[in-house]
Amino acid sequence: MIIVLRPEASEEVAKEILARIESLGLRPLCMPGTERVVLGALGDERVLAQLRLENHPMVEQVKPILSPYKLASRDAHPHDSVVQMGSLAIGGEAFAVIAGPCAVESYEQMKATAVRVKEAGAGGLRGGAFKPRTSPYAFQGLGLRGLEILEQVASEVGLPAATEVVESQDVGPVAARVACLQIGARNMQNFALLKAAGQSKRPVLLKRGMAAKLEDLLLAAEYILAEGNDQVILCERGIRTFETATRNTLDLNAVPFLKQRSHLPVLVDPSHGTGVRDLVIPMAKAAAACGADGVIVEVHENPREALSDGAQSLFPKDLDRLMRELRPLVAALGRTLS
Amino acid sequence: MIIVLRPEASEEVAKEILARIESLGLRPLCMPGTERVVLGALGDERVLAQLRLENHPMVEQVKPILSPYKLASRDAHPHDSVVQMGSLAIGGEAFAVIAGPCAVESYEQMKATAVRVKEAGAGGLRGGAFKPRTSPYAFQGLGLRGLEILEQVASEVGLPAATEVVESQDVGPVAARVACLQIGARNMQNFALLKAAGQSKRPVLLKRGMAAKLEDLLLAAEYILAEGNDQVILCERGIRTFETATRNTLDLNAVPFLKQRSHLPVLVDPSHGTGVRDLVIPMAKAAAACGADGVIVEVHENPREALSDGAQSLFPKDLDRLMRELRPLVAALGRTLS
Amino acid sequence: MIIVLRPEASEEVAKEILARIESLGLRPLCMPGTERVVLGALGDERVLAQLRLENHPMVEQVKPILSPYKLASRDAHPHDSVVQMGSLAIGGEAFAVIAGPCAVESYEQMKATAVRVKEAGAGGLRGGAFKPRTSPYAFQGLGLRGLEILEQVASEVGLPAATEVVESQDVGPVAARVACLQIGARNMQNFALLKAAGQSKRPVLLKRGMAAKLEDLLLAAEYILAEGNDQVILCERGIRTFETATRNTLDLNAVPFLKQRSHLPVLVDPSHGTGVRDLVIPMAKAAAACGADGVIVEVHENPREALSDGAQSLFPKDLDRLMRELRPLVAALGRTLS
Amino acid sequence: MIIVLRPEASEEVAKEILARIESLGLRPLCMPGTERVVLGALGDERVLAQLRLENHPMVEQVKPILSPYKLASRDAHPHDSVVQMGSLAIGGEAFAVIAGPCAVESYEQMKATAVRVKEAGAGGLRGGAFKPRTSPYAFQGLGLRGLEILEQVASEVGLPAATEVVESQDVGPVAARVACLQIGARNMQNFALLKAAGQSKRPVLLKRGMAAKLEDLLLAAEYILAEGNDQVILCERGIRTFETATRNTLDLNAVPFLKQRSHLPVLVDPSHGTGVRDLVIPMAKAAAACGADGVIVEVHENPREALSDGAQSLFPKDLDRLMRELRPLVAALGRTLS
Repeated sequence: MIIVLRPEASEEVAKEILARIESLGLRPLCMPGTERVVLGALGDERVLAQLRLENHPMVEQVKPILSPYKLASRDAHPHDSVVQMGSLAIGGEAFAVIAGPCAVESYEQMKATAVRVKEAGAGGLRGGAFKPRTSPYAFQGLGLRGLEILEQVASEVGLPAATEVVESQDVGPVAARVACLQIGARNMQNFALLKAAGQSKRPVLLKRGMAAKLEDLLLAAEYILAEGNDQVILCERGIRTFETATRNTLDLNAVPFLKQRSHLPVLVDPSHGTGVRDLVIPMAKAAAACGADGVIVEVHENPREALSDGAQSLFPKDLDRLMRELRPLVAALGRTLS
Repeated sequence: MIIVLRPEASEEVAKEILARIESLGLRPLCMPGTERVVLGALGDERVLAQLRLENHPMVEQVKPILSPYKLASRDAHPHDSVVQMGSLAIGGEAFAVIAGPCAVESYEQMKATAVRVKEAGAGGLRGGAFKPRTSPYAFQGLGLRGLEILEQVASEVGLPAATEVVESQDVGPVAARVACLQIGARNMQNFALLKAAGQSKRPVLLKRGMAAKLEDLLLAAEYILAEGNDQVILCERGIRTFETATRNTLDLNAVPFLKQRSHLPVLVDPSHGTGVRDLVIPMAKAAAACGADGVIVEVHENPREALSDGAQSLFPKDLDRLMRELRPLVAALGRTLS
Repeated sequence: MIIVLRPEASEEVAKEILARIESLGLRPLCMPGTERVVLGALGDERVLAQLRLENHPMVEQVKPILSPYKLASRDAHPHDSVVQMGSLAIGGEAFAVIAGPCAVESYEQMKATAVRVKEAGAGGLRGGAFKPRTSPYAFQGLGLRGLEILEQVASEVGLPAATEVVESQDVGPVAARVACLQIGARNMQNFALLKAAGQSKRPVLLKRGMAAKLEDLLLAAEYILAEGNDQVILCERGIRTFETATRNTLDLNAVPFLKQRSHLPVLVDPSHGTGVRDLVIPMAKAAAACGADGVIVEVHENPREALSDGAQSLFPKDLDRLMRELRPLVAALGRTLS
Repeated sequence: MIIVLRPEASEEVAKEILARIESLGLRPLCMPGTERVVLGALGDERVLAQLRLENHPMVEQVKPILSPYKLASRDAHPHDSVVQMGSLAIGGEAFAVIAGPCAVESYEQMKATAVRVKEAGAGGLRGGAFKPRTSPYAFQGLGLRGLEILEQVASEVGLPAATEVVESQDVGPVAARVACLQIGARNMQNFALLKAAGQSKRPVLLKRGMAAKLEDLLLAAEYILAEGNDQVILCERGIRTFETATRNTLDLNAVPFLKQRSHLPVLVDPSHGTGVRDLVIPMAKAAAACGADGVIVEVHENPREALSDGAQSLFPKDLDRLMRELRPLVAALGRTLS
């Protein structure tokens, strides 16, 4: 940790701070410059954080040096983690495709879509029972009934399913019925939910928040890991920027960055990341090319009638095309298509 | 609602869509142009949303005309709402100041700070018992014990208190102990929490999310209002932008915009909105000048030792100065200082 | 164009506006609703813009329907344009790679790097003579001397070269010496420069500004096209967002979006788009996968000593690896590597 | 400057870098930690920049400590600068109001508006002759003829005028005719233009770019100052964010931040900063309250007919109201209204 003092800070202030650093058993350093005094402190940044030096009126800025997450970091865990979502391995040699409707609307809709997902060759199923919606007047999902439909359909077609959980009290019931818990962008910093998911034994697909820096995402993963659940899958799904041509800006830089810093597998959601059906296939291919471990896409038996996110849902024939185009691409990248 | 068809859309598609609009009892309009056909539909936008025309493969874009919120809108409720947080009226002629530490750390710290808040002349007290923190290794608040301390101190100094609630199951206990529930930026779209707050009888101070458009904020308020709780206070607290000189970018444009579109009172949080102690007083004054109904600021008996957000906390003497400088300013604006 | 009136607008206002629309020879439409009157106007949006209805105090908002660019649009020009930068075709079946140092530093540096670019198999050379730098104290480029070096080296190694032009008065000298003019992100809305480039006969590589929407980029291209130069290459190079882990956020959504809306070829600059050497190769591959017509990357014979942007410059061996990894990838995409 | 090495960096690398730091006459520091080695270098950051340590493959990150601007900094110049724009002092005790149309459209329009500006009591006049416009089909200004009109009208009404300059070759003619050169947001990093303005003897009103950090703005000012022109006025005019309710997000945090870091006067442009007529007055007042030295606002004799930016232009009666409301406000702030 580097501590830059204000120009007007006295020598006493510098001594006081150096003494506080030493009192924690850390190594203090003093670098007096012509314009400002700069102090250093070496050791565990989390111990250093206890000093709360940023609060000091004579401190201009504090610059941490080491990343504040530890369990999510590749430093502590050099090899890639593989998370097993039922029969689907995420993070290994295979490139995973998880597909399904935004929301579970009925048994018939879910079954018809799931059959097409299975036929297309995707390895996992998605479908929302609890839908967080910007407007209170929009369709909010079927809730528990939707969860039951998803469980039944997943079992009938033989695909592991992922579904979103929006409240800590729902973690138990959801974990009992599906192979993977999903935490959505709006809840990425719902820390009570992260802790509850961390206490579950299910894999957790953690989506990046719309305004979350990659460090924030890794710290959110750290909440889950710190509770003892090491089955975390990171997911880039687009951030909010000034661009209005697309619903979000899919930040694919995140993929190689996260793979470099963390051992956790990384998925990409090109459906939310673009919000536009025609852009989903190209961006799914881009995700594969920059090193993602898979994609999660929205597909609906009949997008025209979808109760939510129809504008970004693929038609079943589009999913077939996505799989057909991904196959040679992932082969060229030295991977297989799960 | 305006519906722009793709250039390749046939006349049949236009007719089909017009028929669907009519089937909902709404008035359809057809505007054939040289490059594209544009359709219109007049009536309640929420009914129109059921058509989900954005899902249609021949629809290029859908442009809503009316705002999707209704109860929060000034259209439906032309006069300013005043929300009563205990003895403190928010939204009337008086300019409200709510102050206190980021977090309740102990009875001694809370009491000492609250006494200074009362002496400075502020009308409300703040203090966090449940703290949402980016890192799992940071101080997470005292929880229920913090809530009890806040209740006791508020009663002893005679100030109504606001505190953050982060889970729907905590709404009841918190509402029983403080005058105002606060929903933080990270939970602005935690819809389960919004609904629970809407079912409570307490005023709700709703903070804008870091990536929330003003329309999203009004829709979040609509969730609370739709549950029957009309005591909602909106709060601008800074959004996330590319600027790194300040912790957030305080969007004061939001104040006159929200006052124009909505009848709900609007507060500003210059502490989180800047993240820098030296900027809090100027921005609190700016908030008053552009029409905010008050400010909520962080003050700590000893910011150097604050367990969270010390860098943006005022010293008690700074709060005195803020009140001293606000007084002539709000008088010049034709208001009083609560 | 859709014109939404304020709730308080009278019938006279509506009539007045409809008459103005008609006076321009356009077709007016009136859609009276329960809460607001909505007007429509059909015809050339550029003629409609003359009405300046957004200025009217009784107009709440104006929503254009058609895109304001025309020459850049695929509507007017359905087939892909191919721009010939000397021997290198950009926009056809081949995927183009343009490489070279950020800045021309000396004949020796430029020659050594160009030889390696040629050996690696790239089809074009880049190198800056006029460098726009954020700080006045940073290296500003060799100017005219740099231009002469670039011309000589390009001729010696047999590669067409692109270089940035920063002032309209330099367009002539630069066009006389290199195969392609480059307009940088900071000058994307330097309209005098765009016009000067439009009057030149050289291809123009136009980079997206850091805060430019895709529509702004297409309008900037329109400036060049409107002057009679139809050899425009669009280039995505990252936008400025809240994320600080990378220098910019490379917006690859832009690639399929631009290819869909415009006939112009689209390149991607993963060097500026990430600012991090280790991310350049994965993002170049992602660019290919989502449909870009090529990439422009920074490579330096010795990045450690580069006078600018060394942190994002590839080593020559990295460029070899990029070409080696791109080859099977673009083959799987049905393209060849130029 | 702090240099963080990669975990895999050897001791030799650290020694090599320390020797390079020493070779420049600077003081090197070595801080070996458990996970990474951190190096320090003390002295002029601009000399340190020559080391280009960020290019080194074994360097993970470089953190500068001192600001890279010097002439613009308050460190070097503790007292507030006052810039004299003809008869109008900007930066002293008085709060300056500069008003006028977006564009000079004709002698009649300019004169009528200027008379109203003078009557309202504003101290300066604005009006654009060279208009940078996003679309090539929009009104581009009257050019030299507009400049002549502005000069004549300014002289007739007795107000100093500011006008935008968009090309370095126009700096001379513009400086000969008006009291203040304006550099617009789109040209804030047009470095050729900044240098030309720096060589002029006229005050320069420098607007912040839409994607410019405050440090970028101060470095742009540094370009002008470094050429020997110390009459620079900074201007906050809104940045581009995800919010679409307003044209830009006016970042008033910038005002106290810039006043603290720099001695240069700071104006605010609430017309571009909001893009909405109804928000201009409240935000002008907010600018005064947080310490701005004045505002520059758009006013048009007849905004309905304005050829550009009419939606954000005040009516003359609105300007009267602005002055009337500012007067008691700036008095309460201890200033006068110029």
